Amino acid sequence: MPDPARRNDRSRLAILDAARQLLAETRYADLTIEAIAARAGVGKQTIYRWWRGKGAVILDALVDAAANADLALPDTGDLHTDLRAVMRATVAEFADPRLSATTRALTIETLADDDLAGQVRDRLLRPQLDAVQDRLRSGQAAGQIRADVDLGQAVELLFGPLYHRWLLRTGPLTDAYADGIVELAMTAIGQPGGTETPGGSSIVKTVP
Amino acid sequence: MPDPARRNDRSRLAILDAARQLLAETRYADLTIEAIAARAGVGKQTIYRWWRGKGAVILDALVDAAANADLALPDTGDLHTDLRAVMRATVAEFADPRLSATTRALTIETLADDDLAGQVRDRLLRPQLDAVQDRLRSGQAAGQIRADVDLGQAVELLFGPLYHRWLLRTGPLTDAYADGIVELAMTAIGQPGGTETPGGSSIVKTVP
Repeated sequence: MPDPARRNDRSRLAILDAARQLLAETRYADLTIEAIAARAGVGKQTIYRWWRGKGAVILDALVDAAANADLALPDTGDLHTDLRAVMRATVAEFADPRLSATTRALTIETLADDDLAGQVRDRLLRPQLDAVQDRLRSGQAAGQIRADVDLGQAVELLFGPLYHRWLLRTGPLTDAYADGIVELAMTAIGQPGGTETPGGSSIVKTVP
Repeated sequence: MPDPARRNDRSRLAILDAARQLLAETRYADLTIEAIAARAGVGKQTIYRWWRGKGAVILDALVDAAANADLALPDTGDLHTDLRAVMRATVAEFADPRLSATTRALTIETLADDDLAGQVRDRLLRPQLDAVQDRLRSGQAAGQIRADVDLGQAVELLFGPLYHRWLLRTGPLTDAYADGIVELAMTAIGQPGGTETPGGSSIVKTVP
């Protein structure tokens, strides 16, 4: 006996899979609902029954892929090291021409569509930003971040400059840039004195 | 005797003026080259002779308006105060529905057009970012910013979070948010100890 619910699930997964495959092969601008339907072996109407348009399918395909990824940051105990790793990975995504083209195209759609913007924020970005915030929270619990720091603001202090540079193309997106922002942000949110030896001993070092 | 160069100048200014007027009356999406031409009293072809499309005309209209504005930050001697002023003004622009709609529309065009993106960056944004960097430089000269701070990175540490919040709609754009980012950024780039009395006297204050 055929099971319509199972068949729907299979079609849905085939469509998301096809969307991801085509995203890796085609420019976003050239990617069509027709091509996704053909690759997934379903009719175009099946896609339009479940999604409003290309942006919505792509979002679901990306959310679906992210759902299987472990977003948690490493916790080596060294907050600098862990933040450098996630910031370098983000810079690498922005610097990758294909990933950047997808982000660019999805950003265009979110700028023109409030509902899609909310979904991208809540389903795609928020889990990633929350993962960073979780790591900052454990750093705060360990006394590496000042108790009065708003961790949501701290996340934006880290990622804001990367988005700014990517969006406005104000400079190269490199590991060195990622490291520099981590350094500045950690100075902003870390305990005064930071990783240096506290107390009077530092004065001795400045004597020529 | 008619002077074609003068007539061209007059037409050009009339077109830019019409573009700015319409931008204040119409949604960017509904703003057409035809409407700009009609308002300016020129033929559509005159606009297409000088500009590639709507994005390019709007950019020139905004650059032309900015050219008459004094971008320099106030220099009260108090860097915190001066940065809070410029950050609050930027937040107010992002929070203004009409200005934000224009920025949003122009951002969409820059994400799809590398040449326009470069022009927006170099002609519209760079002068504004440079003005902030100039104020940071005088603060650095006055010893309020550490000598090893990269001032370009410092500008992105300030404005990146605002753009992040505006682009991704991760939270409200308020004066309090602007002030909070200034506080964090100044902790990152300021002299250790900040505005407090330097040296051993601060220890005395912590004695109960």
